[in-house]
Amino acid sequence: MIIIMSRSAQDEQVERIQQRLRELGFGVHLSQGVEKTVIGAIGDKTPELIHSIAAMEGVERVVPVLKPFKLSSRDFKSDQTQVQVGDVVFGGNQAVIIAGPCAVENQEQLLSTAKLVKAAGAHMLRGGAFKPRTSPYTFQGLKVEGLKLIQEVSRETGLPVITEVVSPHEVELVARYAQMLQIGARNMQNFPLLQEVGKAKLPVLLKRGIAATIEEWLMAAEYIIKEGNYQVVLCERGIRTFETATRNTLDLSALALVKKWSHLPVIADPSHGSGRRDLVLPLSRAALAAGADGLMIEVHPNPERALSDGPQSLTFGEFAQLTKDLAPILQAVERVL
Amino acid sequence: MIIIMSRSAQDEQVERIQQRLRELGFGVHLSQGVEKTVIGAIGDKTPELIHSIAAMEGVERVVPVLKPFKLSSRDFKSDQTQVQVGDVVFGGNQAVIIAGPCAVENQEQLLSTAKLVKAAGAHMLRGGAFKPRTSPYTFQGLKVEGLKLIQEVSRETGLPVITEVVSPHEVELVARYAQMLQIGARNMQNFPLLQEVGKAKLPVLLKRGIAATIEEWLMAAEYIIKEGNYQVVLCERGIRTFETATRNTLDLSALALVKKWSHLPVIADPSHGSGRRDLVLPLSRAALAAGADGLMIEVHPNPERALSDGPQSLTFGEFAQLTKDLAPILQAVERVL
Amino acid sequence: MIIIMSRSAQDEQVERIQQRLRELGFGVHLSQGVEKTVIGAIGDKTPELIHSIAAMEGVERVVPVLKPFKLSSRDFKSDQTQVQVGDVVFGGNQAVIIAGPCAVENQEQLLSTAKLVKAAGAHMLRGGAFKPRTSPYTFQGLKVEGLKLIQEVSRETGLPVITEVVSPHEVELVARYAQMLQIGARNMQNFPLLQEVGKAKLPVLLKRGIAATIEEWLMAAEYIIKEGNYQVVLCERGIRTFETATRNTLDLSALALVKKWSHLPVIADPSHGSGRRDLVLPLSRAALAAGADGLMIEVHPNPERALSDGPQSLTFGEFAQLTKDLAPILQAVERVL
Amino acid sequence: MIIIMSRSAQDEQVERIQQRLRELGFGVHLSQGVEKTVIGAIGDKTPELIHSIAAMEGVERVVPVLKPFKLSSRDFKSDQTQVQVGDVVFGGNQAVIIAGPCAVENQEQLLSTAKLVKAAGAHMLRGGAFKPRTSPYTFQGLKVEGLKLIQEVSRETGLPVITEVVSPHEVELVARYAQMLQIGARNMQNFPLLQEVGKAKLPVLLKRGIAATIEEWLMAAEYIIKEGNYQVVLCERGIRTFETATRNTLDLSALALVKKWSHLPVIADPSHGSGRRDLVLPLSRAALAAGADGLMIEVHPNPERALSDGPQSLTFGEFAQLTKDLAPILQAVERVL
Repeated sequence: MIIIMSRSAQDEQVERIQQRLRELGFGVHLSQGVEKTVIGAIGDKTPELIHSIAAMEGVERVVPVLKPFKLSSRDFKSDQTQVQVGDVVFGGNQAVIIAGPCAVENQEQLLSTAKLVKAAGAHMLRGGAFKPRTSPYTFQGLKVEGLKLIQEVSRETGLPVITEVVSPHEVELVARYAQMLQIGARNMQNFPLLQEVGKAKLPVLLKRGIAATIEEWLMAAEYIIKEGNYQVVLCERGIRTFETATRNTLDLSALALVKKWSHLPVIADPSHGSGRRDLVLPLSRAALAAGADGLMIEVHPNPERALSDGPQSLTFGEFAQLTKDLAPILQAVERVL
Repeated sequence: MIIIMSRSAQDEQVERIQQRLRELGFGVHLSQGVEKTVIGAIGDKTPELIHSIAAMEGVERVVPVLKPFKLSSRDFKSDQTQVQVGDVVFGGNQAVIIAGPCAVENQEQLLSTAKLVKAAGAHMLRGGAFKPRTSPYTFQGLKVEGLKLIQEVSRETGLPVITEVVSPHEVELVARYAQMLQIGARNMQNFPLLQEVGKAKLPVLLKRGIAATIEEWLMAAEYIIKEGNYQVVLCERGIRTFETATRNTLDLSALALVKKWSHLPVIADPSHGSGRRDLVLPLSRAALAAGADGLMIEVHPNPERALSDGPQSLTFGEFAQLTKDLAPILQAVERVL
Repeated sequence: MIIIMSRSAQDEQVERIQQRLRELGFGVHLSQGVEKTVIGAIGDKTPELIHSIAAMEGVERVVPVLKPFKLSSRDFKSDQTQVQVGDVVFGGNQAVIIAGPCAVENQEQLLSTAKLVKAAGAHMLRGGAFKPRTSPYTFQGLKVEGLKLIQEVSRETGLPVITEVVSPHEVELVARYAQMLQIGARNMQNFPLLQEVGKAKLPVLLKRGIAATIEEWLMAAEYIIKEGNYQVVLCERGIRTFETATRNTLDLSALALVKKWSHLPVIADPSHGSGRRDLVLPLSRAALAAGADGLMIEVHPNPERALSDGPQSLTFGEFAQLTKDLAPILQAVERVL
Repeated sequence: MIIIMSRSAQDEQVERIQQRLRELGFGVHLSQGVEKTVIGAIGDKTPELIHSIAAMEGVERVVPVLKPFKLSSRDFKSDQTQVQVGDVVFGGNQAVIIAGPCAVENQEQLLSTAKLVKAAGAHMLRGGAFKPRTSPYTFQGLKVEGLKLIQEVSRETGLPVITEVVSPHEVELVARYAQMLQIGARNMQNFPLLQEVGKAKLPVLLKRGIAATIEEWLMAAEYIIKEGNYQVVLCERGIRTFETATRNTLDLSALALVKKWSHLPVIADPSHGSGRRDLVLPLSRAALAAGADGLMIEVHPNPERALSDGPQSLTFGEFAQLTKDLAPILQAVERVL
């Protein structure tokens, strides 16, 4: 790390910092400019040292030299990770399409959706049984009953299912019914939950928090991998900005950058990313063109009766059309459905 | 709610929406403008109806008329709520000062801090035993051992203690050792956790999420109150903006607005709110002047050896000076320490 | 517009608002809910009326029913506008590529770049003679000398040139040398400048401000069109968010939405949009896939000696490779270079 | 500056950068870590060198050591600058209150407001003659006629007047009628305008742009001072965030930080900062407590008939009450009206 001293720092303060760094095992390098002094500290230490040095008298700021993520980094593992869920492979030449309703509502809704999205080319089914909702007065999901429906529909259609888990002590339960665990945007920094899915044997889809930096997102992946679960797929689903015409701002530059920084597969969720049904197609095309390894799309048999997220859900007809409309882009990026 | 139809909406679509609204028990009111049709729906229904109507063909957008928060609202309860922790009362004429280290590190650190902050005028001690940290490679807290130290120091000094809880199934454990439970910014929308502290008998401090709107913050409080726990204190601790010179942007307009919209006490955390030791005093003064019912301030015997948040922690001397420097402002806002 | 009264509004306040609305020529529609009263005002009036009504006693908020942009809207003109610059047409089936250096530095730099980018497939040359720079201590452009170089190089290569204008009284000057005028992000709401380019006979490229909403962006276009100049091309160039790994966040959902709301052509600037050379290709692909009518890309013969924006400029080799790499996407979106 | 090389940087790239730095007159300092190489470059050079070095092969990023602002910095001038307008002094022990309507509408409106705000304790009158408005269809100000009214009212009441200037070639005109020039938020980076007011003999109030960092704000001040005009007062007026309940988020941490970094006086505008009449008092109190040298407040004889910004304007009665309510805070911060 590099320590930039304030202009008014005294020699004795500079000296104390050097002493402390040596004490901590760093190699120390002093560089005295005309106006400011800069101290280089060589050695790969834990992030809290950075903070503790930053708190010392005379320090203006500390600049870390190394990126804090390791296991999720291309520096650690240069080749693309592939994550397998049933026959589906994220990170290969397939553009994985996950489709389904925001929330599981009943057997008929889930089964009809599963059949339709499968026929239209989707590889996996999504559907929430535990729904984190902004308001306590809205539908919170069917919970265990929803998990059972998921399992039943998955068996009947052969589609692997991804569903969200919101509490550390429910990970085991959810893992009994689904083939992939989803960590939602609100839980991206729910560390006990990340650690728990890190201990599970199932692949995990980690959504980016609405105000998370790319670095924080990869640090969250780090929590999962550190527990031994390398089967992590990242999902860009929009960040919160000042714009009010869209629900969120889908950040495809983050997606493209994560593809460079990390070996983990990355998909995009244009449904949450925009909150508008009419933007799902252009953003799906854009995400694939930016390098996404797949898409997650909300589909509902009857969006206007959906118990959540109706305005961004596609109808069956719209979804079938979407998969057709993606064909030329898929060809352009040399991916197959 | 009000439904604004798109310019191209057809009569039949307008008709269908009116039918559906009547079906759902709403009073319906049609207003046909030159360019657009607007439908008023009278009745107090659940938020998902708003979403489901928004998904109907021909709708441009739906505008809710009522605010979604109820139990936390001044409309529901007009007089200021007071929350008591030991002898301390939030929401009265006392400006409650909570001070202490970010993380509990050892007995000596906690005890010396407790004695000092008490002597300098603080009413409560803070200290984290379970620390949610961005990186899995940093200090995660002493956990149960930390809770025991908290209890011991609280008994010895007589200061009530607040500590963070990060997992629903640890609420009961933490509640055995502390006098107030903290929900951190990252967990503001950890709904299972909110529900669990809603069932606890202890007062709760609910920090605002870094990208949470005021409405979402109050909806999170709603989750706690709905379970029966009305002892909720809100804490503004800075939001994430584009500014990089400060760690966060302390949003005192939100604090002032929440004081108007809600009957719950609200305090400010200028330490996290700015991330800079040199801004703690001016922002403490500003927060009290804006109407804050108290402050939460990080203090450490030796910030440069702190295991977390050193750069924003005050030394003992700085904290003692701060409480002195707040005296004129306290007088101005007619509050006492 | 719709006026939502506060819960505590008195009958007399509701009455006064209705009177005032009738006075102003609105049709008035009263809807009394259980908890709140809503007043519908029918008629298409100026935006300040909305503000003035919002200031009346008892009003909680005013919701406009109509979008404030008119001339730039698809409601006003449903077919796609085409803007012609020399032989280049924005808004047709050509994906227009504008390339060149951030700033004009000297004849050799501009001419060599122009020749290269033309050979690699670009249709227009960009190059700034008046450079708005954050710091007064950095290179501010060659000014008139730069304009002369632009004209000379344009004549020699046959490439039309776009260059930025930063001051209303220089519009006429710049228009003598260039074929298209650029309004930079910082000047998106420089209204005297917008009015002046609105009076010019040249096409205008209007960049989105770094914190401008889509609506504000279209309102800025409105300023230009209102003066009689319909030849406006919009350019999404990234917005400012909390993310620090990229210079800006390219907002392709805005681009896609503007394509729906407005008849004006829209292009993307992935160079400023990301600030990173290594993201220019994926974001160029994504922008075209999202529906962009073209791209604006920074190219410099020697980025590491560039007087501005080196880190985001492509070398000649990189640009030539980029135009090749775009071919499959162009085919997918049925556009030609 | 410090150059952090990417992990994959080759020796030859490191060598080239060192050569280039020496060529440019920097002292060079190499520090080879286990994983990365860091180059220190000693010398105070122009910002574009930072950009050009950042564009070189093998560089991951460049960290500037020195802050880019100079003339506005406390390092350059450590004592507080005082700016005088008539008898009013910004930056001394007076808390300067500027009050008046958003826009000058007619003689009667301006004169009655001036008399009232003077009687209630205001020191200066504000009023816009040239109004930059988001929509071209709204009131754009009375222009020269407005300036004449300003002058007339100023003479009659003895209050110095501040008014906005929006175009470089109108600076001279406006300077003939007003005592202080305002640069609005939208023009904070209108560099030709900044340079022109830098040449004027009048004091300048420089509002912060809605998405400007503190550093960019000070760099804008730098443009003015560089032309010879040291009479610059800064004004924090809220930044754009995701929050929708307030028009902007008043950033008092920026205000407090600017007081530390710069010797220029800083005031706050709680009217634009919140957009809500009911927040003007708490935010005025908070701004003074945070160290503001003054306040700018919108007052209108009849906000509900105001041609702009009615919802945030105080009535005469409300303003008179506000100045009374500020008394205890002023005493606490040892300022006088």
